[in-house]
Amino acid sequence: MDLVGTFAFALSGAVLGTQRGMDLFGVLVLAFVTAAAGGILRDLLLGAVPPVAIASWYALAIATAAGLLAFGFQPLIARFHSAVLFFDAAGLGVFAVTGTYKALEFGLSPPMAALLGMLSGIGGGMLRDVLTARVPVVLQGEIYAVAALAAALMVLAGEWMGLSPTIVSLPAIGLCLALRLISIARGWKLPVAPTRRD
Amino acid sequence: MDLVGTFAFALSGAVLGTQRGMDLFGVLVLAFVTAAAGGILRDLLLGAVPPVAIASWYALAIATAAGLLAFGFQPLIARFHSAVLFFDAAGLGVFAVTGTYKALEFGLSPPMAALLGMLSGIGGGMLRDVLTARVPVVLQGEIYAVAALAAALMVLAGEWMGLSPTIVSLPAIGLCLALRLISIARGWKLPVAPTRRD
Amino acid sequence: MDLVGTFAFALSGAVLGTQRGMDLFGVLVLAFVTAAAGGILRDLLLGAVPPVAIASWYALAIATAAGLLAFGFQPLIARFHSAVLFFDAAGLGVFAVTGTYKALEFGLSPPMAALLGMLSGIGGGMLRDVLTARVPVVLQGEIYAVAALAAALMVLAGEWMGLSPTIVSLPAIGLCLALRLISIARGWKLPVAPTRRD
Repeated sequence: MDLVGTFAFALSGAVLGTQRGMDLFGVLVLAFVTAAAGGILRDLLLGAVPPVAIASWYALAIATAAGLLAFGFQPLIARFHSAVLFFDAAGLGVFAVTGTYKALEFGLSPPMAALLGMLSGIGGGMLRDVLTARVPVVLQGEIYAVAALAAALMVLAGEWMGLSPTIVSLPAIGLCLALRLISIARGWKLPVAPTRRD
Repeated sequence: MDLVGTFAFALSGAVLGTQRGMDLFGVLVLAFVTAAAGGILRDLLLGAVPPVAIASWYALAIATAAGLLAFGFQPLIARFHSAVLFFDAAGLGVFAVTGTYKALEFGLSPPMAALLGMLSGIGGGMLRDVLTARVPVVLQGEIYAVAALAAALMVLAGEWMGLSPTIVSLPAIGLCLALRLISIARGWKLPVAPTRRD
Repeated sequence: MDLVGTFAFALSGAVLGTQRGMDLFGVLVLAFVTAAAGGILRDLLLGAVPPVAIASWYALAIATAAGLLAFGFQPLIARFHSAVLFFDAAGLGVFAVTGTYKALEFGLSPPMAALLGMLSGIGGGMLRDVLTARVPVVLQGEIYAVAALAAALMVLAGEWMGLSPTIVSLPAIGLCLALRLISIARGWKLPVAPTRRD
């Protein structure tokens, strides 16, 4: 599952890079950043250095493969748009759940562990957007971070009830996936400040 | 004082978020980032992990409260604009002073400690601006970073004279506050390069 | 050589700052960021804290000198544009080579060491571009990161053949320099995705 999440995140970064007219190198960088930056940021904040995505080469290899795929076959990827959205949502849940468990392991209090779990899920996409000079989409209305947060909170609930990670992980990932896909299908948005421009 | 600074910084981030039409989640993220990122960056650079704002939940709680306030009562906040400016300037001084002391404690040389102190003060606002896709305001003319630097240098002077932090801190924060408020009142700016566009 | 690279990188950051109409402080920040951020990022990811550019004050001093120079004598710097390009390319090679060696020393696998070496070279310029709210130029077509990567790979080849750093470093830096200068002279670009806007 972790590999699937990495691959899906890398694909979403690479597709954005090709759409912005970046060169091959830029596309590969965006693929790696989107896939790895959330976990790297989590590990830096926990003091778990070097971060997993730097200490081992598998994230780089997967991201490079996804980047080359997106670079060479962009029309194909565009056709499987909903598959990419699905895997991206699954990856979000995976990263949120594993990030929360890792933060708890490092002794963080439950609310901060949930925050770091959510950050593991959304950090890569935020840096991807910063590097393409746009306001991170996650700050602008879709149910995305909230889905990651829901998975993180379910992990906390599981820990509080003394359930083992093997029991809690899949339902928590499923919750994130479901929230994300339903919100896309129904066009659910978070409220924006009612007083804007008044 | 530290809480006041955190609250004021969070408020300034949240207000910017509502003005940019961000959703509730985006506003809360901007509030936390503005309040905490300077100190987090300082702690990462010092190797003091997990950073204070991650290890304890109080910054998150204060930033969330400020974010909800700004989200719900934006016109009210807008009316107290000068109060926000005042607390923001106070927060800047607090973070610069405590940041400089912390860097000295970790063994940094005086000039680098002053740099990290200044960064503690201005880092949150810089990341806030990066996340809203604009050039950080602190790089563009106002007396802001310089006020933080003045407070940091006063801390260095106090250490050099062997004065205790309890004696030096308040005057240093006051210096930053005074510099910032006077420069706003009088429209003081830093010079820009005279040769621009020639 | 390390000092030359730091100075050239700082100059390139400072020149961009003056062109964007930043104030003196902003110009100095951009100079320091461009010169030091790549190495700081590398050290954070390796867990080598505080990073060299924070623990010692020489990068700050050199960057400040370069920033003041660019601020005061911008037309002069503009006249020596090709000298700045040359030193920037040399600095890129120096940082890529020393970064790769440092990452190997900290036990990273060869491909990840090359990645961190390249990041040491390009990270400063990327953050400079993020702070001026533009897409990093390194992602957009020129042979820049690839030149750094070539130097990093030559380091790996040297290690694999058991050659000492003193023998390998200069040729590797020369390779980066040559690749960069030839690509500028001939207008070589990396390919962009062929399917853009289709």
